[in-house]
Amino acid sequence: MNKIPISDELINDLIKKSGLPGPGSASIREITHLVNLIEKATGMNFVRMEMGVPGLPAPEIGIEAEIDALKKGVASLYPDISGIPSLKKETSRFIKLFLNLDIRQEGCIPTVGSMMGGMVSFLVANRNDRTKEGTLFIDPGFPVQKQQVRMLGHDYHSFDVYNYRGKKLRAKLESYLKTGKISSLLYSNPNNPSWICLNEDELSIIGELCRKYGVIVIEDLAYFGMDFRKDYSVPGQPPYQPSVGHYTDDYILLISSSKIFSYAGQRIGIMAISDHLFNRSYPDLRRYYSSDKFGYSVIFGALYGLSAGVTHSAQYGMAALLKAVNDGTYRYRDDVKEYGEKAAAMKKMFIANGFKIVYDKDLDNPLADGFYFTISYPGMTGKELLAKLLHYGISAISLDITGSDREGLRACVSMVQKKQFTDLDKRLKKFNEDHPIANNN
Amino acid sequence: MNKIPISDELINDLIKKSGLPGPGSASIREITHLVNLIEKATGMNFVRMEMGVPGLPAPEIGIEAEIDALKKGVASLYPDISGIPSLKKETSRFIKLFLNLDIRQEGCIPTVGSMMGGMVSFLVANRNDRTKEGTLFIDPGFPVQKQQVRMLGHDYHSFDVYNYRGKKLRAKLESYLKTGKISSLLYSNPNNPSWICLNEDELSIIGELCRKYGVIVIEDLAYFGMDFRKDYSVPGQPPYQPSVGHYTDDYILLISSSKIFSYAGQRIGIMAISDHLFNRSYPDLRRYYSSDKFGYSVIFGALYGLSAGVTHSAQYGMAALLKAVNDGTYRYRDDVKEYGEKAAAMKKMFIANGFKIVYDKDLDNPLADGFYFTISYPGMTGKELLAKLLHYGISAISLDITGSDREGLRACVSMVQKKQFTDLDKRLKKFNEDHPIANNN
Repeated sequence: MNKIPISDELINDLIKKSGLPGPGSASIREITHLVNLIEKATGMNFVRMEMGVPGLPAPEIGIEAEIDALKKGVASLYPDISGIPSLKKETSRFIKLFLNLDIRQEGCIPTVGSMMGGMVSFLVANRNDRTKEGTLFIDPGFPVQKQQVRMLGHDYHSFDVYNYRGKKLRAKLESYLKTGKISSLLYSNPNNPSWICLNEDELSIIGELCRKYGVIVIEDLAYFGMDFRKDYSVPGQPPYQPSVGHYTDDYILLISSSKIFSYAGQRIGIMAISDHLFNRSYPDLRRYYSSDKFGYSVIFGALYGLSAGVTHSAQYGMAALLKAVNDGTYRYRDDVKEYGEKAAAMKKMFIANGFKIVYDKDLDNPLADGFYFTISYPGMTGKELLAKLLHYGISAISLDITGSDREGLRACVSMVQKKQFTDLDKRLKKFNEDHPIANNN
Repeated sequence: MNKIPISDELINDLIKKSGLPGPGSASIREITHLVNLIEKATGMNFVRMEMGVPGLPAPEIGIEAEIDALKKGVASLYPDISGIPSLKKETSRFIKLFLNLDIRQEGCIPTVGSMMGGMVSFLVANRNDRTKEGTLFIDPGFPVQKQQVRMLGHDYHSFDVYNYRGKKLRAKLESYLKTGKISSLLYSNPNNPSWICLNEDELSIIGELCRKYGVIVIEDLAYFGMDFRKDYSVPGQPPYQPSVGHYTDDYILLISSSKIFSYAGQRIGIMAISDHLFNRSYPDLRRYYSSDKFGYSVIFGALYGLSAGVTHSAQYGMAALLKAVNDGTYRYRDDVKEYGEKAAAMKKMFIANGFKIVYDKDLDNPLADGFYFTISYPGMTGKELLAKLLHYGISAISLDITGSDREGLRACVSMVQKKQFTDLDKRLKKFNEDHPIANNN
C-alpha cells in the first residue's frame, strides 16, 4: 500500500493491458481511466488534478426545482427546443445583472451542456460564409472544442496568447483575421488551463477586429465570475464579468452550469446569442438549413437536429438557480471561492518543492488563484513530468493537448480534498528528492 | 367561438404575421406554432394530430428513480459518457428479453433522445469509408433524420417502400446498394408515418444485402412493441419485436424512451451497437476521430463532442424503467395500447366521412392500429387537405415532408382526447358536406 514511487512495471503493465496511449498523449478521459486502474491496483488514493469537474455538491435550489418539476409531470412533455420561458427570462436577466449586457430572451437558449453550445455554434457560425474555413482559437484551451471543429470537417487555427497579451494582441489577431478565412473566434475567460484573464483592453481589441472582419465571437464563460481577484457576483453592481459583448455586435456567450452551480451531471448550459446576430441573415446558411437567419438556424436547425432540446426537469433546475442568483438570494461565489483558496495553498507546495508555475503572470499582475493552475519541473518536458508524477500518486494533464507552446501540466484543484494536502506535500517532497534539480536550472 | 369553418382571412393573417410558410410546406414544429396561434385567436380547441408526442403521463417508476438519484447528489457529477452501469446492464438485458438479440453492455449507450442517437450514427457510420456518400432511407420517414444528414454535409437517397414490399424489396434495395456509395441504411419499424411494419422476410433481405455491400443498418425502434396485432411485451417470451439484428452483423438499434415510456421530456434514448460493429476497425474514421474503432469513435468522438453524455438523473430514470420491464413488474404495453384503440376509432370516423387511408395495407394484412395513420381526401393534394382541415379545427402534417410518393396527411392519435371524438366527428361531417366528393372518385 502507498509505496512511492509506484514501479514502472505496474504502470506500464496497466497501460499495456488497457490499450491506452502513453500518459503524455492521453486525453483527459484516458488519463482518468488509467488513474482509476492504478488506484485499483495499488489501493492508493491519488491526488487527482486531471479532470475539471466540480468538487462541490449541487445547490439544493436546483435539485428542489427539478424534483418539483418532475412531480408536476414534465417528464412526458417535449420541452420547447428554444427553452422554457422561465429559463429564457432568468438568463436574459442574469446577462443584464452580471455582464451588464442586453440580450433578448429569444436569444437565450439552453444546450446540453456548454459542450453542445460549442458544437451548435460551430455548426452554424462556421457555415455562414462559403468562402471562410473555420475557427480561430485563442489558446491554450479546452481540447474538445478543437475536436468538435475537426469532427465537423471544418478547419481551425490557434495561437498561444501568453506572448501576445495587451497591445501585442492586435497585430497577432489581425494576422489571422485579415486572411478573410476565419468564420468564428473562440476563447475562454478565465482561461482554461492557464487561468489568465483577458482584460477590457484585450476584449475591446478582439471585438473591434472581429467586427471589422465579420467574425463571430464565441466567448466561453465556463468559469463565470471565478477570477476571485474581483467580486463579480453582486447583481446589478459593478464590477461586471468582462465580456466582448461590449465591443462587438455578433457574439455568442457560452454559460455553463457545471462550475458556478456545480451542476455538471445534469448537462445543461446556456447559449446566449446577441440580438444582432440572432436576427442576422447569412444566405450561405441555406446550404445546410431551411432559413438564412442565424437564430432560426440555431434553434430549428442545429439544436433540433442534435437533441430536440434539453432535459425538461434540468431546465427548471437551471432556471431556479439563475433566479436565486439574480434575486441575490443565492451567492454562488461564496461556494466556489474555495477553489481559489485551494489553488493558493497547492501552488505554494509545488513551488516549495522545485516546481514552477508555467503561466505565472496575468499581464503585470500576479495570476489569479482559481480552478486551474499550470506547473512545470526544471529539465522535464510536460509528458515526462506527467508520466513521472503518476508514480508518485499525482495526476494531471499535459499542456501539449491544450494548444500551449509551453512544457508543463494543467492542475485542477476541484477534486483535491484539503485533507489530502499533507499527502500531496509528502509526495512532492519525495519527488523532489528523487529528481534533484541541476544548478543550471 | 368554435365557428366552423374558420375564415381564410383569419388564418392567412396569422400566417403572414408569424412569418411561417404556408401549411403545406411547414415543418411539424411550424404547424404546431401556427395551430397555437389559431387556437389563441379563435378560442377553439383543435383536434391536434400533427406532433408525435406522448399523450400519457410518465410512469412513476422513472420519476421516482430520478428524484432518488437527485437526492443522492448525481447532479454535480459528470455522468460516464458511455452510460451508468445499471442502464447499460438493463439495456443489454432488454435487448435479450424483447428482441432475442445479444449485445454486450459496452455497446449499449445512452443518447440525448433517439434524435442524438441518429446524429451520432450518421457522424460515425457515414465517415467509415471515404468512397461512400451517405445514407439510404427507406421512406416514408421522420423528416428530421434527413435534416441531420444534410446538416453534416452528407448525401442521402430514399424511396417509398409501399410499392416494394415483400420480395420486391430485394431488387429495389440492391439497385441502391450496388452503387457502392451507401454507408448506412435507416428505417423505422413500425414505420413513422405509415405504420406499416417490415416483416421477418423483409428484414432478412435488408440484413443480407447490407452485409453483402458493407452497409451499416440503423434500425429506429421509436415505436418499440407498438404493432398491437402482436404482443411483444412478455420478457423472454416469443413473439419478439422483429429486428434486422438477426440477419446482419453491423447494425445499430435506436431505442427511444419517448413513446413506450412516455418519457419524451427527459431526452434520453439508447443507441445499441452490435458487438461486431462496436469492435470493428475502419481506418477512414481517423480522418475525424482519434481511433479507427467504431465503438470508440462513437463514445469518445461523437458523443463526447456533442454533449459529454446524457443528463445524470435521466439515466437513473431510464434504467429503473427498463429494469421494471425486464423483471416483468411493469408492462408498458398495457399503457400504450390505448393508442391503438384510439386509432381504430378515429380511422372509422375519417372513412365514414369520405376520407381514405393512404397506406391501408400491410402486405396482405390489414394495417395495424397504432400511433399514426395516414389519410387523404378524394380530389385534394395533401397540402390542400392540410390547409382546408385547419379551417375545421383539425391539424396534421403533410406526407410531402416524409418522403412519401403519395398525397395525404399523417395523423397522430396521441394528443387527441377520447372526449374530443364527438367534436372530431362533427367537424369531419361538416368538412364532408362542404366538400362533396365527385362521383368519379
